[in-house]
Amino acid sequence: MGPPEGSLVFPHEPVVRVEGPLAEAQLLETAVLNLINYPTLIATKAARIRLAVNNDTVMEFGLRRAQGPDGGLSGSRAAYIGGADATSNVLAGKMYGIPVRGTHAHSWVMSFEDELTAFRAYAEVYPESCLLLVDTYDTLTSGLPNALTVFKELRAAGHDVRAAVRLDSGDLARLSKAAYRMFSEAGFKDPLIVASNELDEDLIADLKRQGARINSWGVGTHLITSSNWPALGGVYKLMAAQNGDGEWEPRIKLSSNLAKMTDPGRKRVVRYRDEAGHPIGDIMYLVDEEPQSGPLISYVGRHDLSFLMGLDAAAHSEDLLTPVFREGRRVALSPPLDDVRRHAQEQVASLSEEYRRLRNPEIYTVGLSPGLAELKVELIRHAPGVLAREGAEAHEGGR
Amino acid sequence: MGPPEGSLVFPHEPVVRVEGPLAEAQLLETAVLNLINYPTLIATKAARIRLAVNNDTVMEFGLRRAQGPDGGLSGSRAAYIGGADATSNVLAGKMYGIPVRGTHAHSWVMSFEDELTAFRAYAEVYPESCLLLVDTYDTLTSGLPNALTVFKELRAAGHDVRAAVRLDSGDLARLSKAAYRMFSEAGFKDPLIVASNELDEDLIADLKRQGARINSWGVGTHLITSSNWPALGGVYKLMAAQNGDGEWEPRIKLSSNLAKMTDPGRKRVVRYRDEAGHPIGDIMYLVDEEPQSGPLISYVGRHDLSFLMGLDAAAHSEDLLTPVFREGRRVALSPPLDDVRRHAQEQVASLSEEYRRLRNPEIYTVGLSPGLAELKVELIRHAPGVLAREGAEAHEGGR
Repeated sequence: MGPPEGSLVFPHEPVVRVEGPLAEAQLLETAVLNLINYPTLIATKAARIRLAVNNDTVMEFGLRRAQGPDGGLSGSRAAYIGGADATSNVLAGKMYGIPVRGTHAHSWVMSFEDELTAFRAYAEVYPESCLLLVDTYDTLTSGLPNALTVFKELRAAGHDVRAAVRLDSGDLARLSKAAYRMFSEAGFKDPLIVASNELDEDLIADLKRQGARINSWGVGTHLITSSNWPALGGVYKLMAAQNGDGEWEPRIKLSSNLAKMTDPGRKRVVRYRDEAGHPIGDIMYLVDEEPQSGPLISYVGRHDLSFLMGLDAAAHSEDLLTPVFREGRRVALSPPLDDVRRHAQEQVASLSEEYRRLRNPEIYTVGLSPGLAELKVELIRHAPGVLAREGAEAHEGGR
Repeated sequence: MGPPEGSLVFPHEPVVRVEGPLAEAQLLETAVLNLINYPTLIATKAARIRLAVNNDTVMEFGLRRAQGPDGGLSGSRAAYIGGADATSNVLAGKMYGIPVRGTHAHSWVMSFEDELTAFRAYAEVYPESCLLLVDTYDTLTSGLPNALTVFKELRAAGHDVRAAVRLDSGDLARLSKAAYRMFSEAGFKDPLIVASNELDEDLIADLKRQGARINSWGVGTHLITSSNWPALGGVYKLMAAQNGDGEWEPRIKLSSNLAKMTDPGRKRVVRYRDEAGHPIGDIMYLVDEEPQSGPLISYVGRHDLSFLMGLDAAAHSEDLLTPVFREGRRVALSPPLDDVRRHAQEQVASLSEEYRRLRNPEIYTVGLSPGLAELKVELIRHAPGVLAREGAEAHEGGR
């Protein structure tokens, strides 16, 4: 499944290199893919939503729509890494230390005889962090006026009050402006206006365009499932095998589907940045190949070996692969979640503008080194099917 | 998120009624939704795929693209219920007793010096259930001829051989026909031809239309994530609350979004069938309301109270809700998985044709009983927002 029109913002699929006895390395395939594909997808979706909201707050509200209980948990974690500020998933908060936020439910209001009584009861429990859901009956004529009454009562009782409401249906642009005006006129500065209801980055961007007075976004279904693109297509392929003498022999998978052709050999991945620190491209090298100095040559992508480009020679580079296990022993600790989040946010922020567009972003370049490109072409030429086909064509030509 | 063009085949969202102390019933909300929404979605997707393949075999191949490890497990289980015959998820097979099937990986072929040697080594291990993946190098010129060689060798060695291959890329219609012809001409009757590669019910239906000779379908990503509609929007709402005297008072949630308006009160759901056993509609009744005899009247759906329809009076009916817990004690056992699957298959099969279309199926009718419709209208009229708005309008009108 190819990317939708609004593509990923992260440079490319994560790369993992696994070396080991064939059977053991094979056993890891599905686990590695399952544990990388979904979280990467959701972190990416969260990063796109983060780009849309700019400096507002994003709350991940997805658990009830997550694909299984674990989807809710690992999805909450990934959403936090990608740029969400909080989750409504209390267990994720407990397990991973993600800030937990939410509002009361409609049932809170409905369990009381009337909305005002419900709001007052809630305000009694949370007098200084009272966030009221105002659309149980009618936002404009019931929810907002009742909320205003309660915030005035809290203020009169001497509490330090920030008026705070959540809009969960209706015309979010219009209602948020009405709420802002109502609270501002009553002297409540900078009201917190939370919106939810089938939001995604496109809808958020459109609400921003309309001047909606929303400063906190509750995003559920479309974040936790990445609904417009619910699966990242990472794969796990054999790239080389050791022969009887322990030498590594590169292997290639061809197939008539070009996108399913692999890049052979044991590799490293080097990222190049320009003077401003913006990544300008990654190049995959064979492990025994010296990374280039001087003008860079890269054969772009998995799809087209013929496109030649030059990258800035002055760019500085970094190796993207870090050893996590060596000889079966773990050699790197998982960084704390907040460090992972900070790293992800810095990486996204370091991308130049054209990669951070929500629509039609520039596709980040991942190229093959000259050594890798040469090896790939050679293996393609000598692969069984190609040889057989060339033989067959020669044969047919001779008829 | 509304349903896509190809809608659900199951009659409607599952209905669960929970009664209990408010705080306890509230605690269940997210768990109930999480545990019902995703499995129902995947069982439905599997049912659609089952409709597309007709009597062929469906294998669920989704784990590496599932949204979290649990998505793979509960998704495999749901896919089996909905109509898949097997899974490649070995743990799901072990935990739930789902038949496990699969093929070798491309890496099996690539780990050998050449494809024929790899196939022979595989055939040695599975001489009588040898299924070969033929697209590692080139399906037509390498994979299929090598597979044929191996099946001939197995036959010559006296094995009871069914030629069996898996196509994982390229033009599946053309390649399957070529494979069928090749094996048939060599005297292998009824070859097993498995296809995979980003399949879903639409692609399968199109391959069928092209006369593809595929009789087993490996469906991964699009089944395990229900990729074209990755979240079922089931909700959990307060319908009634007990007052101080222990009497149930119906409650309603309005909101300016009509689809988010609830049907008030404690309810039961009755399904009506015609003489042939086809379901013709469900009606929600208040629990203390006598189900109708004689001509049926139903106010349709949550969206439109005004549409009146008559259903066949001779229809026989069944209550859809069954008690699972009473006073905190479980009173119903989970049926064995194969019984659940059989029940689901029978239910889908009992739907008349117009509901089993893959595209633009008839929307199944779920209506309100006269008592429920009357109650709903009354509560809408007396809800806070509506009263306030009518007051405001009257006020504005008076200006």
